[in-house]
Amino acid sequence: MALDSLTFTPIGYVENGFPFGTPGEVLKASEARIVIDPELVPGLDQLEREDRILVIFYFHLSRDYELRQHPRGDTTRPLRGVFALRSPRRPNSIGVTEVELLEIRGNVLRVKGLDAVDQTPVLDLKPA
Amino acid sequence: MALDSLTFTPIGYVENGFPFGTPGEVLKASEARIVIDPELVPGLDQLEREDRILVIFYFHLSRDYELRQHPRGDTTRPLRGVFALRSPRRPNSIGVTEVELLEIRGNVLRVKGLDAVDQTPVLDLKPA
Repeated sequence: MALDSLTFTPIGYVENGFPFGTPGEVLKASEARIVIDPELVPGLDQLEREDRILVIFYFHLSRDYELRQHPRGDTTRPLRGVFALRSPRRPNSIGVTEVELLEIRGNVLRVKGLDAVDQTPVLDLKPA
Repeated sequence: MALDSLTFTPIGYVENGFPFGTPGEVLKASEARIVIDPELVPGLDQLEREDRILVIFYFHLSRDYELRQHPRGDTTRPLRGVFALRSPRRPNSIGVTEVELLEIRGNVLRVKGLDAVDQTPVLDLKPA
């Protein structure tokens, strides 16, 4: 199986002031800003019509992974395969979250429901 | 804005025999196989419990993009920003599709609803 590696450049990053270790529930309940590369702003045209969007991002603080993990690191719960979990610790540390789009102003999106910490690189946005 | 590039290695690829140019509706209505790197098979543990999964893949035949595009290339429809579209022609050519999981056997998943052509690299799988 020949699988060539693929290289991506983030389109922007998350700003929410929440450091590594912030519980996912806190992140999900909070607002965040997604700051987009100013050169890509034309790509946001008409996105404001969407109430909900998909944010594809990179878990940049995830350093390693096991192929079987306890859900949420809770060792009282049985091991599951990483592809059956939403764990950030995975072979390609890509996160996908559907969020509420509150506002777009210039190159900054204001969203609610994004389970990503401050400075998380964003790879893509799509209509949900 | 300092945005370092990120490198990923596919976890597998799509096998469905459908070449570039196959209409999305045909792909969506068809079954596909996702062949996973055999070394990653433990990561599929318990995934068979899920009826629907997210497939994150790479539009490997997409060569360029414009920041504003006509939906589905239909020039009678007004231009929209690429992030307001699901077009494969985008800054990071990542696709995200929720599919029906029919069966897992060894390192091969059988799914329905995947709008990706034959040999598409797969980056990640998650519970939907």
